[in-house]
Amino acid sequence: MPSTLSHPSGRATLATVPDRKERVVILGSGWAGYTFARSLNPNKFDRIMISPRSYFVFTPLLAGTAVGTLEMRAVLEPVRRLGLDGFYQGWADDIDFARKTIRVEANTSDDLASRTRLMVKHSSEASEKGPMFEVTYDKLVIAVGSYSQTFGIEGVKEHANFLRDIGDARKIRMKVLQLFEKAALPLTTDEERRKLLYFAIVGGGPTGIEFAAELHDLVKEDLSRIYPELMRFVRITVFDVAQKVLPMFDQTLAQYAMDTFRREGISVKTGHHLTRIRPDSECEGCFKLKIKEYGVEEISAGIVVWSTGLMQNPLVEKLSCKKFTAPPTTPDVKSPVEVQLEADPRTGGLITDSYLRVNVTPRTAKSEPSLHNLHAGPLVDVYAIGDCAVIPGEYLWSLIFFT
Amino acid sequence: MPSTLSHPSGRATLATVPDRKERVVILGSGWAGYTFARSLNPNKFDRIMISPRSYFVFTPLLAGTAVGTLEMRAVLEPVRRLGLDGFYQGWADDIDFARKTIRVEANTSDDLASRTRLMVKHSSEASEKGPMFEVTYDKLVIAVGSYSQTFGIEGVKEHANFLRDIGDARKIRMKVLQLFEKAALPLTTDEERRKLLYFAIVGGGPTGIEFAAELHDLVKEDLSRIYPELMRFVRITVFDVAQKVLPMFDQTLAQYAMDTFRREGISVKTGHHLTRIRPDSECEGCFKLKIKEYGVEEISAGIVVWSTGLMQNPLVEKLSCKKFTAPPTTPDVKSPVEVQLEADPRTGGLITDSYLRVNVTPRTAKSEPSLHNLHAGPLVDVYAIGDCAVIPGEYLWSLIFFT
Repeated sequence: MPSTLSHPSGRATLATVPDRKERVVILGSGWAGYTFARSLNPNKFDRIMISPRSYFVFTPLLAGTAVGTLEMRAVLEPVRRLGLDGFYQGWADDIDFARKTIRVEANTSDDLASRTRLMVKHSSEASEKGPMFEVTYDKLVIAVGSYSQTFGIEGVKEHANFLRDIGDARKIRMKVLQLFEKAALPLTTDEERRKLLYFAIVGGGPTGIEFAAELHDLVKEDLSRIYPELMRFVRITVFDVAQKVLPMFDQTLAQYAMDTFRREGISVKTGHHLTRIRPDSECEGCFKLKIKEYGVEEISAGIVVWSTGLMQNPLVEKLSCKKFTAPPTTPDVKSPVEVQLEADPRTGGLITDSYLRVNVTPRTAKSEPSLHNLHAGPLVDVYAIGDCAVIPGEYLWSLIFFT
Repeated sequence: MPSTLSHPSGRATLATVPDRKERVVILGSGWAGYTFARSLNPNKFDRIMISPRSYFVFTPLLAGTAVGTLEMRAVLEPVRRLGLDGFYQGWADDIDFARKTIRVEANTSDDLASRTRLMVKHSSEASEKGPMFEVTYDKLVIAVGSYSQTFGIEGVKEHANFLRDIGDARKIRMKVLQLFEKAALPLTTDEERRKLLYFAIVGGGPTGIEFAAELHDLVKEDLSRIYPELMRFVRITVFDVAQKVLPMFDQTLAQYAMDTFRREGISVKTGHHLTRIRPDSECEGCFKLKIKEYGVEEISAGIVVWSTGLMQNPLVEKLSCKKFTAPPTTPDVKSPVEVQLEADPRTGGLITDSYLRVNVTPRTAKSEPSLHNLHAGPLVDVYAIGDCAVIPGEYLWSLIFFT
């Protein structure tokens, strides 16, 4: 274990051993990082993974686990089972590309859950951080994925339920069952029952639509037998700001889903903008949702499941603003230059070349195009894959599979 | 649903219907309550259950779920699956035997977990309580079980892990995995690793011994392959105040368990008194345990699993102190008298007759034995079963099965 740590003399010593394997450090245990780690030849490479959670989640099945169709364990794969040469539970906090060193914040929280959305204010962030340590790499694969997008809407982070990790699914499952038990209590009024059993889903992408369908099946096939007298209070509604849902799918597929939803009584409110979530003081455990299109009147729901897409991981944002000195990328230039990673202006993702190496551009004023061209090119030994990467020419593909 | 509520005129109306089924209300969804509810004939009785948790837990397998041998779902049985005529998620807060009415505190907390130990101070208890409602009964079965006994030892309620409900098992599982991940971090010192991987189990009864064995198997068979370099830091120790463990089993069985433990390296410290648990300020997430026999020196552990036996449910304590007017239990006495439930002086449990009906004694000074004898006898229509009941002549049996 000590050999994986950054050590001034350690690297030099190791470098003299001719058959030393290259150390490949992978940041992230999601689809990109986990799949890559699994396919990496252990005879050729030292495989080190750094991730805040010690498992891979089969995300398309999360909606199923959230309603109990699937057992939680069925959608997890422990990273430790890969038999990697090292795994550190933590967040990559910063990367020193010149020293080939990653600063890692240990995740020592008790619930193993990853941060999948920004929960701490930037001003007080420093004090919230865990202990730090450093890990060196020969080759680095950035696969840190993305966070949930909340658009800064009031009350979303505090009151909405997300659906990105196994803990999220468990919370939703518990809450749905609890809402029915609350509604079944004899002192609950019919008005409260209507509020408790109003299930609001915000976001008409695959996750939101899938969850709405799974929840509907749970209610119709199972809960209707247990709580027949409560069925008349149940409402499932999907909200989306866009004019149609499932925009990444073929129009006929999306239309088929909508027709099915209409037949089954699931409401889909397109062109609706949620602007605030707050607790409903008149109904314990319920929330008031302010919808721009409804004016001052708020609707009440027992749960708000939030799935409006992704935002860039804070590490990627930090890295793309960072200036550092790198060896020249073309033989024409002899001396090291100050560069920064190239980020996609639209998504904020790291732009790579066709070998998935991250691109760097010189740190220069926009008025010097010639210098720019001379130094632009891939950063050797640093790769980006998955949600946090933007691969030229592969945009449509990544849109389909990672949205 | 409204018909299950207490209503001044409702009962009278219902009573005039000749074929009305008797309403049997069962308090508790544990071994006693769940098993009884399942065996009750739905054609003869209206079956109503009141319990803070909506499921039955197969408790002997909890230790297995805590280490991942078993899936959580495998040890649960939802009460709703029994198809009872009513289920209310809440705690029986008080019983009016004269009016045949139960006051119920709704459990509207989001995690469905029951209280299995006293968590709130009696002084501020009122403010912590949930909404109340009333349920009437024709026959009442008290099967509220017991709470975990902490003997008022400092820090136990705050820092120890219990093993009585499914949520307890999940917390232990998460914590054990997290302790190993923390110990595997490169910045963790060997001294911290020794603390993190010291697993303290307090209580040498079946639960504590079973958990120690399950934990040992998890470490030896699975975690040793994942964290081979950490194995030298792992210690599993069972503490008990008594001079031997498993006192309720045959001596040869207990000895066999101890011999196996010794061979496998699990320490058993009998005659040891834990007097305090507090956080270890020098090792984040660890605890300092003060043991009377060790003097001022404290030992450090990553987790303390507490299983030192049971204490009476607060409802039973409240009921046994309560005075109420009941019809005379013997034909010799004509007028109603003030009585109270008879509690076992040793365990505090409700004493029943051989038909499991709770006994009442007149509220009287001890100097009036004749009056006492005249009115002592079973309270009609009120039964007690399980941990909270003491059945004369059945003491040894209940000791074996419910300790």
